[in-house]
Amino acid sequence: MSSTLPPLANKLGGLRSSAIRDLLKLTARPDIIGLAGGLPDAELMPRERLAAAADAALSHRGCLQYTESAGWGPLREVLAARESTRIGREVPLAEVFVTHGSQQALSLLAEVLLDPGALVIVEDPAYVGALQVFRAAGARIVAVPLDRDGLRLDVLTDLLAKGERPAFVHTVSNFHNPGGVTMSAQRRRELAELAERHGFWVIEDDPYGELWFDSPAPEPVAAHSRNVIRLSSSSKIISPALRVGWMVAPDEVCRGVELLKQGADLCGSALTQQIAADLLADRVWLAAHVDTVRGAYGSRAKALVHAFREHLGHRANCTDAAGGMFVWADFTDGTDTQAVLPRALDNGVAYVPGAAFAVDTDYRNSMRMCFTTSDEATLTEAIVRLARAVG
Amino acid sequence: MSSTLPPLANKLGGLRSSAIRDLLKLTARPDIIGLAGGLPDAELMPRERLAAAADAALSHRGCLQYTESAGWGPLREVLAARESTRIGREVPLAEVFVTHGSQQALSLLAEVLLDPGALVIVEDPAYVGALQVFRAAGARIVAVPLDRDGLRLDVLTDLLAKGERPAFVHTVSNFHNPGGVTMSAQRRRELAELAERHGFWVIEDDPYGELWFDSPAPEPVAAHSRNVIRLSSSSKIISPALRVGWMVAPDEVCRGVELLKQGADLCGSALTQQIAADLLADRVWLAAHVDTVRGAYGSRAKALVHAFREHLGHRANCTDAAGGMFVWADFTDGTDTQAVLPRALDNGVAYVPGAAFAVDTDYRNSMRMCFTTSDEATLTEAIVRLARAVG
Repeated sequence: MSSTLPPLANKLGGLRSSAIRDLLKLTARPDIIGLAGGLPDAELMPRERLAAAADAALSHRGCLQYTESAGWGPLREVLAARESTRIGREVPLAEVFVTHGSQQALSLLAEVLLDPGALVIVEDPAYVGALQVFRAAGARIVAVPLDRDGLRLDVLTDLLAKGERPAFVHTVSNFHNPGGVTMSAQRRRELAELAERHGFWVIEDDPYGELWFDSPAPEPVAAHSRNVIRLSSSSKIISPALRVGWMVAPDEVCRGVELLKQGADLCGSALTQQIAADLLADRVWLAAHVDTVRGAYGSRAKALVHAFREHLGHRANCTDAAGGMFVWADFTDGTDTQAVLPRALDNGVAYVPGAAFAVDTDYRNSMRMCFTTSDEATLTEAIVRLARAVG
Repeated sequence: MSSTLPPLANKLGGLRSSAIRDLLKLTARPDIIGLAGGLPDAELMPRERLAAAADAALSHRGCLQYTESAGWGPLREVLAARESTRIGREVPLAEVFVTHGSQQALSLLAEVLLDPGALVIVEDPAYVGALQVFRAAGARIVAVPLDRDGLRLDVLTDLLAKGERPAFVHTVSNFHNPGGVTMSAQRRRELAELAERHGFWVIEDDPYGELWFDSPAPEPVAAHSRNVIRLSSSSKIISPALRVGWMVAPDEVCRGVELLKQGADLCGSALTQQIAADLLADRVWLAAHVDTVRGAYGSRAKALVHAFREHLGHRANCTDAAGGMFVWADFTDGTDTQAVLPRALDNGVAYVPGAAFAVDTDYRNSMRMCFTTSDEATLTEAIVRLARAVG
C-alpha cells in the first residue's frame, strides 16, 4: 500500500467546523448545565404520535419507494394549505418544495441564487449555519446589525443608497437565533418594498415562528412580496429526525432547486415525509401539541430571563424571550464572554460567547443562552453559577 | 407586487433535468410495459420488518433528536463490521460515513476531491447521476469505455501514459448501471495499482454488489488499495425510503465530507438510521431477505435475456444479467434505438435509448432495460412488443 494518499480539493483548507460544534464537544460534561446547545427538547417531541404515524405509513408499500425530488405530493398539499393560511394568499403546489431540513434549502438556494462573488446580506449576529453556506459558495458577505426590532433597515437602506446590490438578504425574522429578537411588522413591509424596488431576494428563514409565548409574531415578510423565499421546518415543532423542512418560493426558484436536489441526494425519505404529512395535517392535535411546547419553553425562558435580570441585570441586558429557543445578553460592564468561559465551565455552566456569531461586530461582551432543555430550577441555578463566574 | 422577480444564478442555464426523468414522465402509461425505469421492486421491500424496526426505534426518545453529521454511532458500527468483512481488513469507525443515499456521497465527494477544472474519468456508458454531479462541479470529464470485463484499463493506461492525471476515476464495479457488466478480479487489482502509482482516487460506487444471481462479484477494488473510496447503500437491498447510503474512505476524506455535510443538511435522520441499523445488524434475517430479492430479480433477468435472445438475438447482443437491475443491449444491424422509441411506445413497451448514458461514444444502437418491477411473463411480452417495434 502507498503511504501517501491523493490530494483533496484546495478549498477544504478554507473550511472549518463551526466553533459552536467544537465548543459543545468540550462542554458535554454531566456536571455542566448546558445553555450552549441549540437543540429542541426531545422530551417534548410527540413520540407516541410519531409511532402511530410510522405504523400507519408502513401499513402500505407507498412509503418504501424513492419519492419525487420536490417532495411527496400529499405532504406538499398539506404544506401548501398551511402556508396559504400563514402568508395570506393561495400558495400553489408548484411553489412548495420539501427539503432535508431548512439547512438544505439554504445550501441549494446558495447555488441557485449566487453567482461567484455575489453580495449576500446577513444579520449580525448571524445564524452560523447560513453564514457557513454563503461563505462556502464564495459570496461577498456584508452584515447588517440587529436591534430590538430586528434587522436595522436604516443600515440596509444606506448600503443600497451607496450602490450595493445584494443577490439576497437572509433574515431569521422570528425569535432570532442567536439574537432573540423579532422583526417588527413595519420593518417587514419596508424590507419587502426595498426588495422589490432594488430587485433582490429575501430569504425569510423561519424555523421558530410557531414557538411564540405570549402573542404570535407579525405576518411573514413573505406576505408582502413575491421576492421573498420563505423557509420553515418541522424540526422545532415536531422532531428534527424527520428531516422535513420546506420552502415556499416562485416556481422558477423551485425548479432550480429541484435540478440541484437531484444531484445533491435525488430525493427525501418517502417514509418520514408521510409521517410528517400525517402529523401536520392533524390540525387539532398539532395545535394542542405546539401549545404544550410553547407553554414549556415559555416557562423556561421566563425563568432564565428572570434569574438573569435578578443576578446580572445591573451589568447586562438580555432579550425578553418572547419565543423561539434563545436569549441573547449584552454585558455593559466590559465583561469578555470568551475570556470568562473557562471560569463558567469551572462553575458548571456553559454558554456560547457572542464572538461565535459575529460577522462585522465582535460581540465580545455578548452571549447566547438556550433555555429549551432544562427545567426552571436548573436554569435558575445556571444563572447563579454564571453570576459567580463573572464575579 | 412587482411583476419581475430578481435573477437566478447564471450556472442554472447550464443545468438540465436528466433525459431519463423526462422520458419516464412520457412513458408512465398503464398500457406500456416499463423497462425504462430504474427502481427496485417495492413489493420485495421488507415492509413488516421495517414496521417492527420503526416501532422499536420509536419506543425510545433517542431516535427523535438531531444526530451526528457522520451518522448515528451504532449504525456506523454495524457498517464498519459489515464493510470489514467485505473489504477484508479492519475498517475503523472514523472511516465510515453515513450519507443520504450514495448520491449524496457523490455530490459531497465532488466538492471534497475536485478543484475547478480537475479531470474526472467516468465509464462510458455512464451512471448519469454521477455524471451530472461531476459536470456541475466544473470537472473536465473524460470517458473510458466498458467491455465485458468492465472499465477498459488499456484505454485508461493510454490516457495516463499521455500525461492525463485524474483527481479520481468513478466506477460502478458490480452489475453496472446501465452497462450490466462487472469488473473482473484482475482489473480490480490493476486499477488499484494504477491509482497508487499515479496518485489518483478511485470512487467505487457499489449499490448493486449484493444483488448477484449465480455467484458473488469479485472482492471490491477497495480491498486492494487505500486510494479507493467505497460507496454502498441500503436502497437496493432494503428500501430507498431510508435514504441510508454509506462511504468507506480514509479519515481525511471523511472529515472533509463531514464539514460539507454540516452545510449541506446538518445530519441525516436518526429515525431512519436506527431502522437501518436494526435491519443491517440482523444478519440471519438480512441474508434470507437479500436471497429472496436475488431469486426474484434473477428469474426476471433470465426471462428477459432469454426472450431477448430468442426474438432479437439475430440482430442484437445483450449482457448476461449476472446481477443488479439492468440488461444492456447493442443492436448490430444499425437499429437506432432513439428513432425506434416512439414505435416501441405505440407497441406498448418503453426502454431507455443508449444515447441517454453516452459520454464520448453515441450508443445510438444500444438500450438499457430494467427487469426489476415486472414478472417473467410480462417481461417476455415486453420483448415480443419490442421485436415488433424494431420490425
